[in-house]
Amino acid sequence: MTLVKNAVGRMVPTEINGRPAIPFQGVGKHRPAGRKVGPPIPTGADFTGSKLKQSIDEVLDSANLKNGMTISFHHHLRNGDGLVNLVMDKLAERGVKGITLAPSALFPVHEPLVQHIRWGIVDNVEGSMNGPVGRLCTTGGFKKTAILRSHGGRYRAIQDGDLHIDLAFIAAPSADSHGNANGVHGPSAFGSIGFALADSLYADQVAIVTDNLVPFPCYPWAIQGGNVDYVVQVDSLGDPGKIVSGTTKVTTDSTRLQIAQWAAELVRDTGLLEEPEFSFQAGAGGMSLAFVKYLGEFMKKKGVSASFARGGSTKLLVDLLNEGIVKYILDGQCFDMAGVKSLAENPRHIDTNPFTSYCYHTKGCFAPKIKVSVLGATEIDMNFNVNVNTHSDGWLLHGIGGFQDTTDAYMTVITAPLVRKVHPIVVKDVVTVTAPGESIDALVTEYGIAINPRRQDILDRIKGSGLPLVTMEELYDKATELIKGKRKPMPETTDKIVAAIEWRDGTVIDVVRQLAPDDRGY
Amino acid sequence: MTLVKNAVGRMVPTEINGRPAIPFQGVGKHRPAGRKVGPPIPTGADFTGSKLKQSIDEVLDSANLKNGMTISFHHHLRNGDGLVNLVMDKLAERGVKGITLAPSALFPVHEPLVQHIRWGIVDNVEGSMNGPVGRLCTTGGFKKTAILRSHGGRYRAIQDGDLHIDLAFIAAPSADSHGNANGVHGPSAFGSIGFALADSLYADQVAIVTDNLVPFPCYPWAIQGGNVDYVVQVDSLGDPGKIVSGTTKVTTDSTRLQIAQWAAELVRDTGLLEEPEFSFQAGAGGMSLAFVKYLGEFMKKKGVSASFARGGSTKLLVDLLNEGIVKYILDGQCFDMAGVKSLAENPRHIDTNPFTSYCYHTKGCFAPKIKVSVLGATEIDMNFNVNVNTHSDGWLLHGIGGFQDTTDAYMTVITAPLVRKVHPIVVKDVVTVTAPGESIDALVTEYGIAINPRRQDILDRIKGSGLPLVTMEELYDKATELIKGKRKPMPETTDKIVAAIEWRDGTVIDVVRQLAPDDRGY
Repeated sequence: MTLVKNAVGRMVPTEINGRPAIPFQGVGKHRPAGRKVGPPIPTGADFTGSKLKQSIDEVLDSANLKNGMTISFHHHLRNGDGLVNLVMDKLAERGVKGITLAPSALFPVHEPLVQHIRWGIVDNVEGSMNGPVGRLCTTGGFKKTAILRSHGGRYRAIQDGDLHIDLAFIAAPSADSHGNANGVHGPSAFGSIGFALADSLYADQVAIVTDNLVPFPCYPWAIQGGNVDYVVQVDSLGDPGKIVSGTTKVTTDSTRLQIAQWAAELVRDTGLLEEPEFSFQAGAGGMSLAFVKYLGEFMKKKGVSASFARGGSTKLLVDLLNEGIVKYILDGQCFDMAGVKSLAENPRHIDTNPFTSYCYHTKGCFAPKIKVSVLGATEIDMNFNVNVNTHSDGWLLHGIGGFQDTTDAYMTVITAPLVRKVHPIVVKDVVTVTAPGESIDALVTEYGIAINPRRQDILDRIKGSGLPLVTMEELYDKATELIKGKRKPMPETTDKIVAAIEWRDGTVIDVVRQLAPDDRGY
Repeated sequence: MTLVKNAVGRMVPTEINGRPAIPFQGVGKHRPAGRKVGPPIPTGADFTGSKLKQSIDEVLDSANLKNGMTISFHHHLRNGDGLVNLVMDKLAERGVKGITLAPSALFPVHEPLVQHIRWGIVDNVEGSMNGPVGRLCTTGGFKKTAILRSHGGRYRAIQDGDLHIDLAFIAAPSADSHGNANGVHGPSAFGSIGFALADSLYADQVAIVTDNLVPFPCYPWAIQGGNVDYVVQVDSLGDPGKIVSGTTKVTTDSTRLQIAQWAAELVRDTGLLEEPEFSFQAGAGGMSLAFVKYLGEFMKKKGVSASFARGGSTKLLVDLLNEGIVKYILDGQCFDMAGVKSLAENPRHIDTNPFTSYCYHTKGCFAPKIKVSVLGATEIDMNFNVNVNTHSDGWLLHGIGGFQDTTDAYMTVITAPLVRKVHPIVVKDVVTVTAPGESIDALVTEYGIAINPRRQDILDRIKGSGLPLVTMEELYDKATELIKGKRKPMPETTDKIVAAIEWRDGTVIDVVRQLAPDDRGY
């Protein structure tokens, strides 16, 4: 295997799973060639009968199953998903081998996949792995190299032909017999179903699985019947209580509240709030919610509004929409029931998908229109390179999500406590580079705010603001002091590359190496 | 040129404009090969600046103009369109030659194109030609063979790569600087902008032209900014008074009222109204509206509702939606202001496009879900073959519209007075076959209803109904009597093929030949 040094100084392979791989070249530097995928031309003559199948088994009977095929799922059901395990068990029963699994993400509920991977039913995962499957990957348990992509990167990879899907399963809270489907209505409603759009457009075969078959036309038709082969009704898509939170809650931890407040003050003091196209994005964690709360209060005080907020929607964001502080929510996933309900009912709460929001290989997505994105991280280094995938001990436990894509914002702010348990956030070198420092603009900790020196424009904006500015070096030293100097070395790994981290343009920004047995903690 | 006899007995060429052509093989018989078009992969790196251009000229400065290019437009502005002539005049000024024009349709307002074609600015039209350009085509004034396609056929041709568009101009009543656009808001609002969808997805370059630039996000985004290269604001898109009718009106002519009533009785007496998935489609002409009016009355009397009605929407259809007689309108174009307003405001009035509604090369569109479609025609022959393109005197004056696509309905009904002026509707041979008899199920005239003998199921449904059933032979004889036996022969033509009529699957169902000079009437 040939390794070359990429633009963030990481050694990455020039070939992954037998396909050429391009090393990360810097933000906006790689130019794609070629054409988008053109799926096989179907004919209405093959769809004069019913698409309805009586069971998942009937779908599998009709689908052209073969060893080595790629099967995809979306992750809008999160840890409440009942579909992935069901389908994979059936494929295992049928003796299909060497499957590449292409979920937008996996969760702890998908632990049964560990056995399927060990037994050779599944050879690889191209998708995010939160939890047990990530642990297996880190120990070298996959036959191939896993590939992690951002939400926009996954759409891009499918569109560009890097990730060919043979058979896509789309769990749909509402669908009709034609295959039109959405995520906003029905007992398993989770809101936006956008992560499945690329699958529906580009997979050879598409199966809609629903627990809520409605008369034609199912509308909104976020997934369109013209792209669907099969529709099957099941009793349940999973555990609704784990699909969407009842409520998302603002943190009550004083450290996190301090960080959130400073992040909001940073945004306020840049003057961005007063600009007519102000917009922002933050997650659904307690600290992100606190940031949104503070920001909303500042906006109310100033009598200004945001042209839009990017969701992950939450009750807090919905409240701001209803109060007119936010004019539109552009939503990619709903994190609580208030978000789902608002998406279904409020015409200013707009459903999006990774094509409109995040995909870099378009004639522009709206990610660069976002003025401020506030994101979490597991590590950040002195050059502002960020890791969200691995922990400091080397375990690959998180997906990229929309992280890379949202760094396209005018100002990307990382919020994190300086030390988590015994792990400092600020390090000399991150274990894994998820996003290059050139895309990260600020770090807000409870010990102060570091602005990326590349962003003189932001430094100019906040001059004289009284914000607690510090340097990364100062934060590094403070963190070292807090852990009493006991900085752990980088985790010990073998040479084996178990996963590649793609930048949103499809180039390889870093790899994850197999944890050495002694460093696995068991 | 090699000519072969196709499945409706017409002699058609095996090559058109240097490309292989497939003769019509019967409904559902031709199987497509190959893959959909994969457009060149763009990169966000090329779209970091503004897409806004100050003028059409600035768009043309940026676009990669070349002789022989294909330029497209949609026809939602109808006879009020101000864009086609404006752009074509500018291309003429710039000396671009040999353009293929690919409008979804042209109207009398586009008469200035006649000069552009004569001067070699435009070599060909692939699209419908209502009026003067059609006349020019019929006299052999084009350098190439024009190609006419249905709405679904046009989407298919662009998707399948038969019609490659270099530069698409999309007139948008509402758009933002990112290129998101819709047709429902703004001073030139015309409703659905669906005819432009394929252009936006597959053209190399896409320019949005709007007279109503709104802040991001313009929503609904029927056209998505991720597919758009340029956005330009102009003072006006055309003449709003001619874009959409103020009101559409039910006919008051007693003959047409009789036909409409019988058509509605035919539908009623089939028992389809009582079926849970009843749905229907009719046009916006006075007789079609009368049909809808009678049908609505029957439905009210029976206390039933339609699962959906397919628009072309009109005030009449909107009233039925609001009364609950129609549960949804699936709308492809709005024919009056009530339709536009309803599409903008009523969530049960759903915007569609030719992919969802009509395209045959999908995994099913909804055309076959329509139970009854009621359509007009210029001629129909003893085998139920229908002509909607040419008049009996040979002039090519009409497009196909959605005609072919809607024949996919369970029951396709042609309504027409038996004689128009001196022209009988029922003929031995239609001048041009637009749709094959196998796709047409009934003809309703003021002298009775002829059911296609192929449809024994329909004949069984209406047995004993008391409907005035007649045979095509009887209608032919009656028409001959009405015109006192003075049936005109087929128009005299040269051998030159001036236009090809494609069936919705891309095969050639008929051709139009150049009218012989003596038969041109001037």
